[in-house]
Amino acid sequence: MIVVMKVGSPETEIERVSQELTDWGLTPEKIVGKHKVVIGLVGETAALDPLRIQELSPWIEHVLRVEQPFKRASLEFRHGEPSEVIVSTPSGSVPFGRNHPVVLIAGPCSVENEEMIVETAMRVKAAGAQFLRGGAYKPRTSPYAFQGHGESALGLLAAAREASGLGIITEVMDAADLEKIAEVADIIQVGARNMQNFALLKKVGAQEKPVLLKRGMSATIEEWLMAAEYILAAGNPNVILCERGIRTFDRDYTRNTLDLAVLPVLHSLTHLPVTIDPSHGTGKSEYVPAMSMAAIAAGADALMIEVHPNPAKALSDGPQSLTPERFDRLVQELSVIGKAVNRWSQPAVALA
Amino acid sequence: MIVVMKVGSPETEIERVSQELTDWGLTPEKIVGKHKVVIGLVGETAALDPLRIQELSPWIEHVLRVEQPFKRASLEFRHGEPSEVIVSTPSGSVPFGRNHPVVLIAGPCSVENEEMIVETAMRVKAAGAQFLRGGAYKPRTSPYAFQGHGESALGLLAAAREASGLGIITEVMDAADLEKIAEVADIIQVGARNMQNFALLKKVGAQEKPVLLKRGMSATIEEWLMAAEYILAAGNPNVILCERGIRTFDRDYTRNTLDLAVLPVLHSLTHLPVTIDPSHGTGKSEYVPAMSMAAIAAGADALMIEVHPNPAKALSDGPQSLTPERFDRLVQELSVIGKAVNRWSQPAVALA
Amino acid sequence: MIVVMKVGSPETEIERVSQELTDWGLTPEKIVGKHKVVIGLVGETAALDPLRIQELSPWIEHVLRVEQPFKRASLEFRHGEPSEVIVSTPSGSVPFGRNHPVVLIAGPCSVENEEMIVETAMRVKAAGAQFLRGGAYKPRTSPYAFQGHGESALGLLAAAREASGLGIITEVMDAADLEKIAEVADIIQVGARNMQNFALLKKVGAQEKPVLLKRGMSATIEEWLMAAEYILAAGNPNVILCERGIRTFDRDYTRNTLDLAVLPVLHSLTHLPVTIDPSHGTGKSEYVPAMSMAAIAAGADALMIEVHPNPAKALSDGPQSLTPERFDRLVQELSVIGKAVNRWSQPAVALA
Amino acid sequence: MIVVMKVGSPETEIERVSQELTDWGLTPEKIVGKHKVVIGLVGETAALDPLRIQELSPWIEHVLRVEQPFKRASLEFRHGEPSEVIVSTPSGSVPFGRNHPVVLIAGPCSVENEEMIVETAMRVKAAGAQFLRGGAYKPRTSPYAFQGHGESALGLLAAAREASGLGIITEVMDAADLEKIAEVADIIQVGARNMQNFALLKKVGAQEKPVLLKRGMSATIEEWLMAAEYILAAGNPNVILCERGIRTFDRDYTRNTLDLAVLPVLHSLTHLPVTIDPSHGTGKSEYVPAMSMAAIAAGADALMIEVHPNPAKALSDGPQSLTPERFDRLVQELSVIGKAVNRWSQPAVALA
Repeated sequence: MIVVMKVGSPETEIERVSQELTDWGLTPEKIVGKHKVVIGLVGETAALDPLRIQELSPWIEHVLRVEQPFKRASLEFRHGEPSEVIVSTPSGSVPFGRNHPVVLIAGPCSVENEEMIVETAMRVKAAGAQFLRGGAYKPRTSPYAFQGHGESALGLLAAAREASGLGIITEVMDAADLEKIAEVADIIQVGARNMQNFALLKKVGAQEKPVLLKRGMSATIEEWLMAAEYILAAGNPNVILCERGIRTFDRDYTRNTLDLAVLPVLHSLTHLPVTIDPSHGTGKSEYVPAMSMAAIAAGADALMIEVHPNPAKALSDGPQSLTPERFDRLVQELSVIGKAVNRWSQPAVALA
Repeated sequence: MIVVMKVGSPETEIERVSQELTDWGLTPEKIVGKHKVVIGLVGETAALDPLRIQELSPWIEHVLRVEQPFKRASLEFRHGEPSEVIVSTPSGSVPFGRNHPVVLIAGPCSVENEEMIVETAMRVKAAGAQFLRGGAYKPRTSPYAFQGHGESALGLLAAAREASGLGIITEVMDAADLEKIAEVADIIQVGARNMQNFALLKKVGAQEKPVLLKRGMSATIEEWLMAAEYILAAGNPNVILCERGIRTFDRDYTRNTLDLAVLPVLHSLTHLPVTIDPSHGTGKSEYVPAMSMAAIAAGADALMIEVHPNPAKALSDGPQSLTPERFDRLVQELSVIGKAVNRWSQPAVALA
Repeated sequence: MIVVMKVGSPETEIERVSQELTDWGLTPEKIVGKHKVVIGLVGETAALDPLRIQELSPWIEHVLRVEQPFKRASLEFRHGEPSEVIVSTPSGSVPFGRNHPVVLIAGPCSVENEEMIVETAMRVKAAGAQFLRGGAYKPRTSPYAFQGHGESALGLLAAAREASGLGIITEVMDAADLEKIAEVADIIQVGARNMQNFALLKKVGAQEKPVLLKRGMSATIEEWLMAAEYILAAGNPNVILCERGIRTFDRDYTRNTLDLAVLPVLHSLTHLPVTIDPSHGTGKSEYVPAMSMAAIAAGADALMIEVHPNPAKALSDGPQSLTPERFDRLVQELSVIGKAVNRWSQPAVALA
Repeated sequence: MIVVMKVGSPETEIERVSQELTDWGLTPEKIVGKHKVVIGLVGETAALDPLRIQELSPWIEHVLRVEQPFKRASLEFRHGEPSEVIVSTPSGSVPFGRNHPVVLIAGPCSVENEEMIVETAMRVKAAGAQFLRGGAYKPRTSPYAFQGHGESALGLLAAAREASGLGIITEVMDAADLEKIAEVADIIQVGARNMQNFALLKKVGAQEKPVLLKRGMSATIEEWLMAAEYILAAGNPNVILCERGIRTFDRDYTRNTLDLAVLPVLHSLTHLPVTIDPSHGTGKSEYVPAMSMAAIAAGADALMIEVHPNPAKALSDGPQSLTPERFDRLVQELSVIGKAVNRWSQPAVALA
């Protein structure tokens, strides 16, 4: 941590700040520049809040953090080794991580009825997916929009899981539903709008199912890793990050801006696996194939893609869903890139 | 709602879409342009989800909403009349609204101890505030940062309320705490990070205390009003909006960009009262006075300002807090602007 | 300047970097932290480019600037004294600056014809404006949109200047037009899109007319001050900054987000006067009055407001223009705030 | 174009607006909704400015454009066929376009001296590049930073061109330098900061060398295509677009956010070829390989990559430059992806 004092700070004030920091157990070192004095802090500063230091004196201009604020999520925490999150599914364990093949998660935005969800599961399984996504509880901007079928949809997901052997991933919006969801889901999703719902993060951290943590719409990479840190600190080591597009000034052609540079950035910062969601990331099914290809080429550990048997009738997010046929074809296209980067598994049939 | 078909859409597809929309109870009217066909929809379209329409056909290029998606929050819902949210406090009722004096809410980010919170309450009351703000539960980016004193802090707020006669406003982060908070708080705050925590919105909508709804960091005005609509639709008509700065590309000197243009914009869209929070909105106490002046000049119905008896020792958000002395002086400065725009009440002493 | 070395940097590399920096004439001071080493630099570092330092070694993690990169624009350059930019007009000198009344600049987006521009000039003069704005050369997103009447419009501005006694402010887009424009204009405007057109900045810096420098759509405050620094460094000390709204994610109701917090921020960083343009800043005439009031309350040194005798027929930017009648009334409203903050001049008639 | 009238618009006003639009040669069709009236416009509306229509009446709420504002840049302009921009180089013609192999452009940010630029040229040529990039005139935020060697650097680029047989691409910042630059450059670059320097766009449109047009830092895709339209409309059909990262709220780890979704979006909107610049797009050399891989996988027509023989001594942009050795290796990595998507040429040696 570096404390920059304002031009003209009184010597006594600099001393007072240094003394206070010493009282906190830190070792301040003063550097007297031509115009300004800066104080370098040696010691356990990672957990320090820069704002708390800034409060010490109105003569403090800036407090610059030199250490990263996340610990358990950091690459150093595992001595530079990527972690693998191993998820149990009816068809066996599926590992997410940098040294494993790309995992495919596919399915509709919302669970609509048994026929639809089971059919979709069978189709995406046949195409090569290992997980079925499907919303029982849906975050919707409008209170008047379809909010998901809730608990009854959980039963349908269980049926699809049983029929297909796929693992299930579904979103929790209310901590009160967590237990019910955890009975069905193999991975619990925390959505973008709840990335800083700290009460919820603590609760998913206190249960055992792996958690897929979506990046908030305007979350910095650091805030996202700190949200993961909430889950890790609460005792759950199985966190998978998911980039789903950030909000920028240009929303005319895409709903969000898919930030694929998080792949090399996160690979240098954290050991956690990273999923890319090109469906929400662009908001249009026609852009999904190109961005899926790009994600694998850039090092994604998993892809989450919306597939709906009849996108024209989907109860939500239709325009960003692929048909099962298009998904079949996409997996073929992806396999070419996946093989080129040595991140592709044997055909799906071999997994079962 | 306007449906724009892609160039070259087959006539049969246009007919099919029109027929489907007719089946939904709408009255489609076709306009054949030089290059494109657009379909105008007459009927109850406000609650329609444009995405659901877009799903109808891959030949649909855009669906443009013409009507606002919010109803209860709209100015039309009250036939152009601003609403007044009247809040009970130990010193009597305080109305928030366009036809009332500016309401002053002040206090520390966190409740630290009884002496501190009672002292602050007495000081801001003397300066002219009608409400004490103070956090019992604090949203913090880091799981290792101070998270608020929780339930015990609620007791201290109750003591400060009793001692000062001020109304209390404090944040709910977890629906499980709502009941306890509602026992103490006169206004319940939903923070920026929870603006789209729809489970929480429904629950604060289902209780009776007025709700102050902060704008999310990257929420559009429309999303913010839709979040208010969740609360209104759940049965609670007493919603106060609060602008606290949005996230933009420039974060070097201010933590957020305080978007004061929401004042005239919201005045043209909604009947709900609007509070401005210049403390979070800028993140630095030295910018708070200028932005407070600006907020009143532009039509704010209330101001929420951080005041701490000793900002240099504050447990959170110190750099954005004013001292009680500076707050005293600020209220004098604000009164000049408040009187100039006819939005200033008699001296605080007369309120009690 | 603070150089942060990566975890695990070899001692020899740290020495090599320190030696290199010493060779540059700097005095590096090493602070050995628990995990990282940082090197503080003492000496003339303001003009140093952090990127050039970062290049020195792949082991450098960050280079943090402690000093501001702008000099002539800094408040320190004038020892904390705000500058006044005094502009000659046919009616006498008009000073822009913190210790002077708010200056009013008004007029149409484009100069359309002599009658229109002279009439507008007389009307805004009568209402209290000291400057007429009017575009001869217009930056337009589309090559097919009206581009301004160019040189012939300059003649019309000269006629309006003569008739009204107002000073003229108009935009230069092409350095080739600078001389012609400078013959007519009392202040030369550099538009938002050209804020980092460095070739143009150098040229307006090398001539004598005062320059109004608009903030770029996504320019940080620092980049804006550095653009001013180009003009100042080229020899022209008369720079007036103008905030006109920045680009953010929310563009549904306003064209831009007017960032009024630049007022207190710039007042703490620079001696240069600051103008606010609420017309471009919001893009809608109905929001202009509230934001004009706010700007004066927050300390604006001048306002630039679009006024058009018949906004419904304006060749550009109509929806953001006020009628002369509305402008008359607005000046009355502004005078109330202006007087409240002691920044209002005697009635316009006394100026002439 | 769709004109949405406000709730309660008087019938006479709707008629007046319709009449006015008819006078403009358009065919207005009125749709009477439950709450609002909208007017659809049939006819040549693409070149119409929505703002000019909005001006017609204060009762107009919105004007929604249905047609794209760009024509020559549109995919329809070439009946759905991508264009190819064929650039002459000393080693023969190099085509940019969707049906051609990915073109590699590499070289340093700035031209420093003859030895350096010739060595870099020979190295990147050997690795497989067809173009050498190098700045003679550099846009720098600070007037005190190195501004490029200017005219003398052009001579060095000519020498490197002659020695290596590579095509040359270099930036124009001042129209006054255009002629000199065009003597040396095979492609003229317009930088991000000048994307809306309309005077410059007209001038590069009026000369014959192909133009690489970088996207502005906060330019929408539409604004970018409209900037291209300026060049096309001025008579130069050879425009290559270049994405180099946009400005967003997160600038902690990357300088910009590289928006790779422009690839599928532009492929659906325009016939112009698209280059990706991952060096500026991320600002850090360690992120360049992953983003280059992603760019090719997503359909880039060319890549522009910074390579410097000694990044640690580069006069500008060092941290984002690769060494020639790393670039060699990267081209090998890229070839794997390039071949997988059938966009890779024979080894560079065969081109000469």
